[in-house]
Amino acid sequence: MSELRREPVSGRWVIIATERAARPTDFKTNPQIIKSSFCPFCEGNEDKTPPEILAYRDNGAMPNTGGWRVRVVPNKFPALQVEGEQNKRGEGIYDIMNGIGAHEVIIESPRHIQSLTSLDNGNVKEVLLCYRDRLIDLKNDKRFVYGLLFKNVGFSAGASLEHTHSQLIVTPIVPQLVENEMENAKTFYQHRERCLFCDMVQQEIDTNSRIIILTDNFVAFAPFASRFPFEIWILPRKHEAHFESLQKFEIDDLATVLKGVLTKLEAILDFPPYNYVIHSAPFNINESESFHWHIEIIPRLTNIAGFEWGTGFYINPMHPEQAAETLRNSIP
Amino acid sequence: MSELRREPVSGRWVIIATERAARPTDFKTNPQIIKSSFCPFCEGNEDKTPPEILAYRDNGAMPNTGGWRVRVVPNKFPALQVEGEQNKRGEGIYDIMNGIGAHEVIIESPRHIQSLTSLDNGNVKEVLLCYRDRLIDLKNDKRFVYGLLFKNVGFSAGASLEHTHSQLIVTPIVPQLVENEMENAKTFYQHRERCLFCDMVQQEIDTNSRIIILTDNFVAFAPFASRFPFEIWILPRKHEAHFESLQKFEIDDLATVLKGVLTKLEAILDFPPYNYVIHSAPFNINESESFHWHIEIIPRLTNIAGFEWGTGFYINPMHPEQAAETLRNSIP
Repeated sequence: MSELRREPVSGRWVIIATERAARPTDFKTNPQIIKSSFCPFCEGNEDKTPPEILAYRDNGAMPNTGGWRVRVVPNKFPALQVEGEQNKRGEGIYDIMNGIGAHEVIIESPRHIQSLTSLDNGNVKEVLLCYRDRLIDLKNDKRFVYGLLFKNVGFSAGASLEHTHSQLIVTPIVPQLVENEMENAKTFYQHRERCLFCDMVQQEIDTNSRIIILTDNFVAFAPFASRFPFEIWILPRKHEAHFESLQKFEIDDLATVLKGVLTKLEAILDFPPYNYVIHSAPFNINESESFHWHIEIIPRLTNIAGFEWGTGFYINPMHPEQAAETLRNSIP
Repeated sequence: MSELRREPVSGRWVIIATERAARPTDFKTNPQIIKSSFCPFCEGNEDKTPPEILAYRDNGAMPNTGGWRVRVVPNKFPALQVEGEQNKRGEGIYDIMNGIGAHEVIIESPRHIQSLTSLDNGNVKEVLLCYRDRLIDLKNDKRFVYGLLFKNVGFSAGASLEHTHSQLIVTPIVPQLVENEMENAKTFYQHRERCLFCDMVQQEIDTNSRIIILTDNFVAFAPFASRFPFEIWILPRKHEAHFESLQKFEIDDLATVLKGVLTKLEAILDFPPYNYVIHSAPFNINESESFHWHIEIIPRLTNIAGFEWGTGFYINPMHPEQAAETLRNSIP
């Protein structure tokens, strides 16, 4: 079982997961995704993954056989596992607990497609519905407090398989970066009695220089302090703390916006490696006036160097206004 | 001139430095350092860098000519520049200021050597002396509050030239990661009236399972919550907030320890890409009972993926105790 460890200087938690060293890409020598004629995520190979947790299937199809459209399975090399006790303990000044949590893979298509943008709109909606269903299910387990949905595309963004997929890691602790965002948003709310993110949405729409796509329910923009060229954030225009509170009509709209910005990114940068992450409020918070869920999309074009590691500053060689203009003007 | 921008959600500052897009490696297509027969850092090419700020030279040699052992020049593509006004201002909910600061390159050898470990011990000491001299000089400028010394080795660690060198970026703001460490250390001090780092040094020496090199003045160890395989921290055993307070005899010892751990790292991992950063107290803090300077060495073996971007957690496939044992048992 993996371990969660924390040292008090940075306050950072790390997961020591030695089982994962078995992954062929963990110590990279040849920087690319292993191309193989065999893909465990393709329809027909359902017995090559751990048994499925959820699948959207055509009527009558049996679990762990073909006939699915989106399928969720446990990660074969999980960072955290569901079974067991947390056993929180100290080692002098350090904190340690067992690696309890969940680590799931959302396989977005039965076909060997490499990009979410190659899915039809209905399929993208089902991927987002699946995100919602998994969060709603996992928050019933009171040991868990946070679920991070994320996507790795391309080797340098951490992907080890090319078949389009997302991941969900559920942790027994609120992640430091989310905690930090929540605290900043709370401080803002205490001073102004308004949601920081709602103010951001309004200012971006008013300024209009960093908008990429604007719909009835969502705004996609290049953030004012973009860390990377072509960084994109997507925020719901209506205040909502939890991703899993999304209504059906909002999911339809979000599918269009997400596929839209990714299509633009791929058109401009020729299918770059990228990550996206969804920041939602923790499971154990019912409502929040101050926190507002959002998606951060990070193209992986530049290397992280010592300055970034040492400071938390980022050096971005492109104005976000220029990135937004380029993305806005690109197809579709 | 570059801009410093901050959004209030993450509280993160970014430097928008569009001049740096001219650097050939900024948008990587071919993942390696550009190998060229010409190197602007080699002795004889002094006119190919901006005029030197400091050099340790043999007697009688003229500035910006040969005859130096360590040489400091402004970065040709600076992230921040010395001349100008800060002009701090707001844009609605956002903060912005001009990119005032300093960005220097410490060229560690007149010869085309690719690793600090190929320098003789006297030369490594002079590199560290040079770090100290530059910090002492730059802290006289009251606009500046922080100086980060760091090193990028290898393309994937952000290096664009292979000739062994370090960098110093001086900022008008205390970096978020340093601020965070200072706050955690201060909280610890308020509860226990002891330095957190001093306790860590003591616990590591007592436990002895993560020690790599222990000398009279320094301890190098694999941190309890290592983010990456073979991560190494070096701490002075005696409490000291500022790197630049180092005494001559301590520099001699540190040179041995730094070269020692890097030699071990290179032996085990066959000259891996890596970064190191020096965390020292800000310029505007005279003394600190709670903060303790240290070096963090980060081998760049694994890719950062969505989970890390989204949480600030790291997944490390190797126990630090195992990393320490491997490093301890390796030459020299």
